[in-house]
Amino acid sequence: MSTALAIHGGAGSISAQRLETMRETYESALATALEAGKGVLHDGGPALEAVVAAVCALEDTPCFNAGRGSVLNADGEPEMAASIMVGATLDAGAVANLHRIEHPVLAARAMLEQRHTLLSGSKAEDWLVDNDALSTQAPEWFITDERCSQWESLRARGEVALAHESQTVGAVARDNRGGLAAATSTGGLANQQPGRVPDTAVPGSGTWADDRTIAVSTTGDGDVFLRHGFARRVADLVELEAISPQRACDQALSELKKLGGKGGCLAVGSAGPPVLRMNTPSMFRGLLAEDGRLYVAIGKGEAWHAPGAGWAHPPG
Amino acid sequence: MSTALAIHGGAGSISAQRLETMRETYESALATALEAGKGVLHDGGPALEAVVAAVCALEDTPCFNAGRGSVLNADGEPEMAASIMVGATLDAGAVANLHRIEHPVLAARAMLEQRHTLLSGSKAEDWLVDNDALSTQAPEWFITDERCSQWESLRARGEVALAHESQTVGAVARDNRGGLAAATSTGGLANQQPGRVPDTAVPGSGTWADDRTIAVSTTGDGDVFLRHGFARRVADLVELEAISPQRACDQALSELKKLGGKGGCLAVGSAGPPVLRMNTPSMFRGLLAEDGRLYVAIGKGEAWHAPGAGWAHPPG
Repeated sequence: MSTALAIHGGAGSISAQRLETMRETYESALATALEAGKGVLHDGGPALEAVVAAVCALEDTPCFNAGRGSVLNADGEPEMAASIMVGATLDAGAVANLHRIEHPVLAARAMLEQRHTLLSGSKAEDWLVDNDALSTQAPEWFITDERCSQWESLRARGEVALAHESQTVGAVARDNRGGLAAATSTGGLANQQPGRVPDTAVPGSGTWADDRTIAVSTTGDGDVFLRHGFARRVADLVELEAISPQRACDQALSELKKLGGKGGCLAVGSAGPPVLRMNTPSMFRGLLAEDGRLYVAIGKGEAWHAPGAGWAHPPG
Repeated sequence: MSTALAIHGGAGSISAQRLETMRETYESALATALEAGKGVLHDGGPALEAVVAAVCALEDTPCFNAGRGSVLNADGEPEMAASIMVGATLDAGAVANLHRIEHPVLAARAMLEQRHTLLSGSKAEDWLVDNDALSTQAPEWFITDERCSQWESLRARGEVALAHESQTVGAVARDNRGGLAAATSTGGLANQQPGRVPDTAVPGSGTWADDRTIAVSTTGDGDVFLRHGFARRVADLVELEAISPQRACDQALSELKKLGGKGGCLAVGSAGPPVLRMNTPSMFRGLLAEDGRLYVAIGKGEAWHAPGAGWAHPPG
């Protein structure tokens, strides 16, 4: 069966100026994450390990809002969440309100083997660290100068960052046995109320995987995705309406927009290439094409291209 | 339009002996909650206020696991969660890991007007108490002798309580303008890992309301309901398959069972009486019939009857 992999680094509306300055950084980060996931799939590894590898790489990159480089909550602290789901069993693991685990997606994966699905807060974080030998870091390791400036500016205005600019990261994959998996990770919203649990931490909203239908990872207005039950909705549209993953994502994004929600999503079904859809002006995104090459794009209408190589190479 | 109201006090498998001893207590508590919700609906009030009134009454009753009478987590503390959803707007509010707010469902309702959907933990609880003038209580107010004994026994055996015995409470309602609402509240699982976020706190899993389809409240194996996206699934089955609320609930419960999940749910659509379904031997439940009378039942096959009046009166 043909493998597939797609990743995102958040939907939003990056300015032309910032895009010009940062394009190489973003594309290089997307390429690194795609390579990590591709390595797993091309070695015959499971979709679960491919999405974990890709999301770990995105968490390591300070330009995205997950793991290192997470935004700061109203207390000036990183506050991270992640979830993961395996399509063969519908097993899911999720974590929220983490402050020190280096790779939140690894905490979510550790939860797959626990007796609870979603854990939140410091006591849960301490318990996961003790039980699963997860690496931790001091707060200053997560915090970048750019996130500090952003936080100070929002704080001075008494505002929370726009949700659909959140730069949440995620991945979906299909392995050579047809197994699907999805993972999503976020630092939440800059200057958010401490204790906010985002859709990223919720199977059925930010993440979904079912081998019979589809794997989904979302990014955008998390609170709207949460009260829309977005990822479960996409899967139900594919299953019950027998429409394509692309049509299902577009319909769900259109419903989301009626609720005031902006964002995007990745999806991969049991056959065919992944789809990457958005109702925002941009989404940092990448995919592994069937020919084994990597492609990236940022602006909504932008053609797929090899990282750093301009816009001339649509995927095969 | 005809009003409708149904409530649950948890699915499970109560022993015949305990049922005999406790029937009057349970039925009286269910009747009190039904009366509270009926009062709102018969005064022409909105479904949202009816489910809040019913769930507040259930939270006040120590025999159910929500608010006062909540079970104790692994730290020996009450740890409560609730969610609420309004079908006209799909607005949802939810809270998890609360330790001192007297009525968690009122905290969930307060969240409807905030800019985030789901908040968790002590900082969020402090913020809600300060902002919304919610009543609080000391831990000992919530804790009953029976919950202490249960906790000590589980702790000695190193076990977490069986999820489908959780006695979570919930309500669904339709008001005389056709508006739907649902609310669910729980103390979680006895001896659970502190920080567990249950399906009860998650719109799309434990609670759902959409005026175009259905309102749903669930009880049972919360972690399985969460990774099944249960309440959103019921709504999608009604909308996309055009099947009855009863068939949708039964199909979703059957899917849940395949994932190892036991439990039950309430649902009410845009017309017709509420449905109350379970795949467990019992579910504490009650409904307001079209003739304005109140009916309750506990065992799965048990006929609807007036509270305290035996099994002789099926609802009109």
